[in-house]
Amino acid sequence: MGLTLSQKIIQKHLLHGEMKAGEEIAISIDQTLTQDSTGTMAYLQLEAMNIDQIKTKRSVAYIDHNMLQVGFENADDHKYIQTVANKYGIYFSKPGNGICHQVHLERFGVPGQTLIGSDSHTPTCGGLGMLAIGAGGLDVALAMAGQPYYLKMPKMVQIKLTGALRTGVSSKDIILEVLRLLSVKGGVGKIIEYSGEGVKTLTVPERATMTNMGAELGATTSIFPSDEQTYAFLKAQQREQDFTPLVADEDADYDECYEIHLDELEPLVAKPHSPDAVSTVKEVGAIKVDQVAIGSCTNGSYLDLMKVAAILKGKRVHPDVSLVISPGSKQVLTMLAQNGALADLIASGARILESGCGPCIGMGQAPASHAVSLRTFNRNFYGRCGTLSAQVYLCSPETAAYSAISGTLVSPLQATTFEHPSFPHQFEVLDNSIILPNELKQDVVRGPNIKSFPLNEALKKDLEASVLLKVEDNITTDHIMPSNAKLLPYRSNIPYLSNHCFETIDSTFSSRAKQAKQGFIVGGENYGQGSSREHAALVPLYLGIKAVFAKSFARIHRSNLINSGILPFEFEQSSDYDLIEEGDRLSIKNLKEAIELNQTQLTVTNQSKQSTFTVHLPLSPREKEAILAGGIINLIRQREEA
Amino acid sequence: MGLTLSQKIIQKHLLHGEMKAGEEIAISIDQTLTQDSTGTMAYLQLEAMNIDQIKTKRSVAYIDHNMLQVGFENADDHKYIQTVANKYGIYFSKPGNGICHQVHLERFGVPGQTLIGSDSHTPTCGGLGMLAIGAGGLDVALAMAGQPYYLKMPKMVQIKLTGALRTGVSSKDIILEVLRLLSVKGGVGKIIEYSGEGVKTLTVPERATMTNMGAELGATTSIFPSDEQTYAFLKAQQREQDFTPLVADEDADYDECYEIHLDELEPLVAKPHSPDAVSTVKEVGAIKVDQVAIGSCTNGSYLDLMKVAAILKGKRVHPDVSLVISPGSKQVLTMLAQNGALADLIASGARILESGCGPCIGMGQAPASHAVSLRTFNRNFYGRCGTLSAQVYLCSPETAAYSAISGTLVSPLQATTFEHPSFPHQFEVLDNSIILPNELKQDVVRGPNIKSFPLNEALKKDLEASVLLKVEDNITTDHIMPSNAKLLPYRSNIPYLSNHCFETIDSTFSSRAKQAKQGFIVGGENYGQGSSREHAALVPLYLGIKAVFAKSFARIHRSNLINSGILPFEFEQSSDYDLIEEGDRLSIKNLKEAIELNQTQLTVTNQSKQSTFTVHLPLSPREKEAILAGGIINLIRQREEA
Repeated sequence: MGLTLSQKIIQKHLLHGEMKAGEEIAISIDQTLTQDSTGTMAYLQLEAMNIDQIKTKRSVAYIDHNMLQVGFENADDHKYIQTVANKYGIYFSKPGNGICHQVHLERFGVPGQTLIGSDSHTPTCGGLGMLAIGAGGLDVALAMAGQPYYLKMPKMVQIKLTGALRTGVSSKDIILEVLRLLSVKGGVGKIIEYSGEGVKTLTVPERATMTNMGAELGATTSIFPSDEQTYAFLKAQQREQDFTPLVADEDADYDECYEIHLDELEPLVAKPHSPDAVSTVKEVGAIKVDQVAIGSCTNGSYLDLMKVAAILKGKRVHPDVSLVISPGSKQVLTMLAQNGALADLIASGARILESGCGPCIGMGQAPASHAVSLRTFNRNFYGRCGTLSAQVYLCSPETAAYSAISGTLVSPLQATTFEHPSFPHQFEVLDNSIILPNELKQDVVRGPNIKSFPLNEALKKDLEASVLLKVEDNITTDHIMPSNAKLLPYRSNIPYLSNHCFETIDSTFSSRAKQAKQGFIVGGENYGQGSSREHAALVPLYLGIKAVFAKSFARIHRSNLINSGILPFEFEQSSDYDLIEEGDRLSIKNLKEAIELNQTQLTVTNQSKQSTFTVHLPLSPREKEAILAGGIINLIRQREEA
Repeated sequence: MGLTLSQKIIQKHLLHGEMKAGEEIAISIDQTLTQDSTGTMAYLQLEAMNIDQIKTKRSVAYIDHNMLQVGFENADDHKYIQTVANKYGIYFSKPGNGICHQVHLERFGVPGQTLIGSDSHTPTCGGLGMLAIGAGGLDVALAMAGQPYYLKMPKMVQIKLTGALRTGVSSKDIILEVLRLLSVKGGVGKIIEYSGEGVKTLTVPERATMTNMGAELGATTSIFPSDEQTYAFLKAQQREQDFTPLVADEDADYDECYEIHLDELEPLVAKPHSPDAVSTVKEVGAIKVDQVAIGSCTNGSYLDLMKVAAILKGKRVHPDVSLVISPGSKQVLTMLAQNGALADLIASGARILESGCGPCIGMGQAPASHAVSLRTFNRNFYGRCGTLSAQVYLCSPETAAYSAISGTLVSPLQATTFEHPSFPHQFEVLDNSIILPNELKQDVVRGPNIKSFPLNEALKKDLEASVLLKVEDNITTDHIMPSNAKLLPYRSNIPYLSNHCFETIDSTFSSRAKQAKQGFIVGGENYGQGSSREHAALVPLYLGIKAVFAKSFARIHRSNLINSGILPFEFEQSSDYDLIEEGDRLSIKNLKEAIELNQTQLTVTNQSKQSTFTVHLPLSPREKEAILAGGIINLIRQREEA
């Protein structure tokens, strides 16, 4: 039986496990990328691993998220990432050089290679036949240190594209159609592979719009074949040497198959507040629009903005509309400036923002209260734009541009025609805003807000401490470590963040934990649900939390706890939860030996109640090693020293 | 005896008083401008005056300060200003259209007319022979309502320019030389008039750099003659009809005279943290530079940025430097985009920001900790850039551009030559980001953060209330109404701000005042010193403060109190201050009648102490009217109704 496109890439990179959907596999990673919001922590973790130089083929550190710089913190993060990248042999893409996914597609992505990135839209590079997966910062740090990347082997989904798009309908409308079909949960545990005749009509940047927004399906990644279009793109980027043809076998086996007829597609929008709340522009009708935002990693390519410029040329942005444009990269912006399209955009009244994430992540350009904002971006989650009462719609660049002129939502099909830009023979290649690995020979610069990564200690023979906090069911990572606008600039400052640990539940917790030096937390069902943020484990680690006893754990948080060397014990009897009180002294004798011997059932003594109860701690071999070493980073350090 | 240039303009606009230095005069105002940070309050005041349409020849509302839009507040302010401008017949310059001073120079300023603006750099339009003065928001609102503008007749200072600048030395270096000569206090109570042969060699935008930064001298304003250069500028702006020649009489009498030989000037910098800490670039030497910021209302003109583009063309911004450019206006940005200069800037690695104040006012691009930031802006006050530990130097665009390439401070004289741009025959005139007066026919839109302006009531027969707060000497407006980053977005929300009134001195004051409904404050010497912010009077007004008893008042705050209808009583005997306690009940019988009869000495009864003391209240006729009406806005309302 043949292989799918991604199975072929996985097979070539497989280090452990079997390519059977749902089984854990480990693959080798060729490339990594980080952005600045998650990158600072990833590089602190890399530093803590004590390696000399990174071991990937290509790793790139981008600055694209926090570029407003309203205080010293942003610029300090930039400088830290720049200098640490320089030290470890990592490319550094300066602020202004562009959004990581767009620049990586243009300058670094290679068909057939593997890429993980500490950003959920890393799958963008699937547009040129790369296996590109969004991952946690620690995963990326581990990959840079030469460690494999672990994931569950995904199911395979085929989406066959037939026919070709009409002018006025774009690849953004295809991915919106996919979201309408599959929903925001439809891609979980799956890889989306695009195939069929329609694929050949789509250029790499158009494909990248779709793989980018595959993240909204919850998919592991999305991928296109590497074909003539891929070659044309790489050649125009002066990178034809990076080309390899890649296509699924004819007899490849897919778990699910869908077909989309491109010529039947209409301009679509995703309505507030979900990317899968998809309707046709026609159905939604001519609603008044207050803000139009074009660009981002989804629709900030040269072709996207050339279309927008062609539509806006000689026109006036509606006086009651604020049109903002975030070009995907410096390359895109330079080319638009060179050929006059940027002049057309500015002349029409568009506000040109920096090449960066900007409004897409709520970094500026928050709409007015109750405003309707039409965006070519990938997410319209409630509040993400910075204004809770705003109504955000997602659409194509064509729809956005025509609507910006009219002041109401307009279908490009109803609008006058515009000159469709042609794919460039040659992109403007000028990587002077990228600092090459080891180019500057600088020491690592650590601003006052950047603190070292907290490390645990190796597991000791016995474990004994007091219960510092007892919490209910469904505690989220937001309870454990709030991440609001005020705390966001402190992502690289665990000591500062620790003052706010569990603060909405018990404002005394942080100071009590600091006084106690070490302790336990007791939780109910589904402890640690919510975001994947590692800070919800790192901050307790910093505060001396050695173990969490809970009825059950959310999957990712449990894994983050283990990575930090914190023991996630599950009660064998849920009712034992009721017998423990805050302040109780708990102990486990010979814990280290038990784990070394793969015992999964352990007896805990509640010294305060003079009773015992049983907990579970099932550990994979990888998890066992991490727990014994006192966290994954200690494990790497041990290996590096050995 | 002849007249100076500004005496001629003042004479034509004189409504009251004598043109004798130091005497109060009133002049009629032809034009006004506001920016958004001060504008919201100014328009709330205008609304409170109950007029139908503005009475100036031309009033323009600009959005240029708060364009980052990290929450709904900025966009709500924009919408409020847009709709209120539309209602009252005011031009509205959309965010992205440019910085008020640059756009006003390009599109609205008229030689020989008077302009007041609610921004300290309003004197920029002195570059085309306009009498342009920075004023408070209320002054601007009053001018829009057709009221005269009151000021002390300034002294006259002549600065004669001889010779011509060498390539590499610019008008920024001239104004830095003036600052070195006169210091930041040297212009207080004075108007600076430029004359001499050297003036003819300077284009209007070059002159505007100097009049702009005249604000740093503390000068009332600065002005250039209206001559061939002025005509050339206005013609290239398609506004030759706005030209009038204007020059000082040969025998005009100046209070001070200086002479600067342009050909002897060297590239200069103002060192941290004052615009008058001026040295030559050579003296400062090749210090390492981390950030370079070019543009702003001081050096964001077409010629400025063309020079920068010529220097950066084909070069690479030093990898360890962040170069940010804020073009002065959409006109400038469009022209750079049309002629390829913008492409050169972007290609070199420059980060192009929106046309707005941006980094100059700390709205983004805060440098890293301890960074050296080289800026073509007008102010390098401690902390203004957003990073307390940063070292900010002010310089010319040429010095900035060469230094951005080298990564160290470089004198343009030592650097290679560049092609000097020529003055454009024709500027790109396209005012489509300006909404014309009454164009949109919208109702005023008031976001949830925009609250009505608080109004006092007309003075009653007797006055009686309790002392709610007794404070020491030298209370600043920061004590009365703090204005930190957290409170800044609430400038148009007096009810919210009132919760923070006097909070650093007595956190119970606000709630006590709200409970008491009305009351008094007792202060020591120099009450209300510091900034000119009106909020330090408006918030007490909102809280029901009817009078302040103090040993002495800071001049501007006293005037703000009177404008708000709050009585500023001075103790006749300083020692009476000691006899009053918080909570004491004070009363003045027949106060209204006494003021009507121009009595300046009043007897106060301290009912709690069963004693009396005497206070002074000397009022000019204008002040008397305001106090009787319960504030200046009530006064205008009475007149409008009459």
